[in-house]
Amino acid sequence: IEAEDFEGARALVAPLHPADIADLFALVPETTRGLLAMAIGDALDAAVIAELDDYVRDDVLAEMSAREVAEVMTRLDTDDAVAIIEDMEADEQREVLDALAPADRADIEAALTFPEESAGRLMQRELVAVPETMSIAEVVAHVRAVTDPATDFWEIFVVDPARRPVGTIRLSWLLTTPPEIAVADIMQREQTLIPVDMDQEEVALQFQKYALISAAVVDGGGRLVGVITVDDVVHIIQQEAGEDVLKLSGAGDGDINEPVFSTYRTRSRWLVTNLATGIISATIIGLFSDSIEALVALAALSPIVASVGGNAGNQTMAVTVRALATNQLTEANTRRTIWREIRVALLNGLTLAALMAMGTTAFFGNAVLGGVIAFAMLFNIVIAGLAGVMVPLTLERFDADPAVASSVFVTMITDSMGFFLFLGLATLVGVEYLG
Amino acid sequence: IEAEDFEGARALVAPLHPADIADLFALVPETTRGLLAMAIGDALDAAVIAELDDYVRDDVLAEMSAREVAEVMTRLDTDDAVAIIEDMEADEQREVLDALAPADRADIEAALTFPEESAGRLMQRELVAVPETMSIAEVVAHVRAVTDPATDFWEIFVVDPARRPVGTIRLSWLLTTPPEIAVADIMQREQTLIPVDMDQEEVALQFQKYALISAAVVDGGGRLVGVITVDDVVHIIQQEAGEDVLKLSGAGDGDINEPVFSTYRTRSRWLVTNLATGIISATIIGLFSDSIEALVALAALSPIVASVGGNAGNQTMAVTVRALATNQLTEANTRRTIWREIRVALLNGLTLAALMAMGTTAFFGNAVLGGVIAFAMLFNIVIAGLAGVMVPLTLERFDADPAVASSVFVTMITDSMGFFLFLGLATLVGVEYLG
Repeated sequence: IEAEDFEGARALVAPLHPADIADLFALVPETTRGLLAMAIGDALDAAVIAELDDYVRDDVLAEMSAREVAEVMTRLDTDDAVAIIEDMEADEQREVLDALAPADRADIEAALTFPEESAGRLMQRELVAVPETMSIAEVVAHVRAVTDPATDFWEIFVVDPARRPVGTIRLSWLLTTPPEIAVADIMQREQTLIPVDMDQEEVALQFQKYALISAAVVDGGGRLVGVITVDDVVHIIQQEAGEDVLKLSGAGDGDINEPVFSTYRTRSRWLVTNLATGIISATIIGLFSDSIEALVALAALSPIVASVGGNAGNQTMAVTVRALATNQLTEANTRRTIWREIRVALLNGLTLAALMAMGTTAFFGNAVLGGVIAFAMLFNIVIAGLAGVMVPLTLERFDADPAVASSVFVTMITDSMGFFLFLGLATLVGVEYLG
Repeated sequence: IEAEDFEGARALVAPLHPADIADLFALVPETTRGLLAMAIGDALDAAVIAELDDYVRDDVLAEMSAREVAEVMTRLDTDDAVAIIEDMEADEQREVLDALAPADRADIEAALTFPEESAGRLMQRELVAVPETMSIAEVVAHVRAVTDPATDFWEIFVVDPARRPVGTIRLSWLLTTPPEIAVADIMQREQTLIPVDMDQEEVALQFQKYALISAAVVDGGGRLVGVITVDDVVHIIQQEAGEDVLKLSGAGDGDINEPVFSTYRTRSRWLVTNLATGIISATIIGLFSDSIEALVALAALSPIVASVGGNAGNQTMAVTVRALATNQLTEANTRRTIWREIRVALLNGLTLAALMAMGTTAFFGNAVLGGVIAFAMLFNIVIAGLAGVMVPLTLERFDADPAVASSVFVTMITDSMGFFLFLGLATLVGVEYLG
């Protein structure tokens, strides 16, 4: 491309899978993306655009007219089309919608009425539904007659006359069942129904838990309105499970294609919060300035107490946040889990306290100082364990996201308690016995 | 159950989905699990055991004889059976294998020869493969004749005479294609082949990237040996994406059902490492004890510089670790990503430095002190940004897991540099001008 060999570039790119072409766009520098798009021409089709990273897609779509975007969207299933249009500015959205055929527009507008990240946005409206009175042979004939061969489907939904789902048939059963059997006799009656307003994270958990390939989406009246397939969910599972690590440090959505300034805005907010909590610790240290002046070793040792406590708190917090996110931690086992964390914290606390006591005593030649730091360490690790499990649980109870805010609170607690316990205990014992 | 109403318990539990029964086992206290197993009797079937949490399954299997375990395993697909047996002790494994029918034993032993967490362990051997010379009608007849209706399958693999995969047919295509057409005419020739020794994390990425429902697993000679289906992979995607947050803090596999002592062993190792790196910071602080003695405010302020730097480093690190794990960060965009992080760090550093300079100057009434802490803050945040991106990249280059060890290194760098920059700069300027 740099040599402007458009022919060559197109020949190289065309045979690739749409997902690979989309990756290629993310890998080249922003300035090259327009050239690349020109070079590969119609190899940049609807399937590729659907696979592009959100930020990269913004760049690519900015170069296209509303009509071209509308053209792309008619070739996609509703869920992919909605994923593209929902990120646009309101006025661009309007333009693209106006350029769509009325039927497609109605589908997409309907999807956009559902909240973001809900099942209604994820589902596609293209699906196969049959009444339970049909025989297998009739279902096969029906599928052959009505289905667009380009739409992949894995299960057929059986509905009652009010279009409420009553069962599902996997395609493999259609093939292995004699044609005269009635649908009602082979369909699986237990199925996971996804309410149209269910959050996508919960949808992903349902798919994972019940090993679903596709699931029926129903409206408030229990009527079948769409289907979610596992390939759309895989992406969400990956994203939701991976985003905890980003949220905990306040790194936003952590996309390396996000513009620098938008990343700066997200991250700096968190760093400023961290600065504010740091002032709490600094104030606590300030309370004990007389002791520090009398024995400077206290200033060197206290960050160790705070830091090990912070690490212990973060371990417990990471475990709690994951257990909450995967629905493993519920009211039934909350008390048991807290008690488990206390025992782990006691074991860790005793180990670290013993090490610290020995090290400090040996280095400073003062066993009282060793004892003081050991006590502070033990208590801070136990407090860290409690904070690590209680903070996310409390946030969850108040319907806040435990991954987002937990880390600030836990670090604030372990830092300030670490300094307070060690410096306070040292002052209480009397600095004159420690140096 | 507590009232020993076994009949009632069984009636309640039996209609549940196996995944829900498995969850129930995880939710009740360990001591109740034996009772629960007795109470629900044969509702505790092979499907439930396959769904149990690893640690809970250990408890349940410990109560069963090798013959009973073998009985359970014959009812499962190879991948689920292997998942159960691979966690057992060698002697128990032997006993169970001996109790299996020879054909099942051979399949499972073959799977166990592949490395843990490889495609070979994940795949099931039950699959449908046809030669490309068959017509659609013949394929349908073949499927009807050979397939066990209990095995779900979503795609049919087309193989050449040497059993090398040459294409796939989705079941929906079988239904929508006229019966006389030859398989070779409708099969999709591009397919993602999974080598039998591919790591499960890479398998999961392939499924996600190409939106696969199932994929053929091939041996070293390119011959079809098994199939991996998306429902097995969903679980791994969730686990692999979620485990970064646990690894970064050294929380092990973070399963809340893990025995306390084993959790203690994993976590304490990390805390001891943290203690060791804390000693480095303490030593640096110790170098400047004269300055601290002359101006105790330095002891109160320096942890803020270290802590904000640590947070900034962790943000960049979280983003880098995620980008590496999802194959978004490759050699092609490494330099661009590093440059991006430097720009974000400069913006963050300038913001935080300005805030800190104003706050410190106002509180201590000394603009020189404000200037010193601002410089230290700015430099430490830039160093944090560099460390956050370079440390995981370097670990990745040396084939180490960037999620496991990055956090120690990054925190060590930001802590020690935070103290060193602030205290060093203060000493250089001269403490007498700061207080």
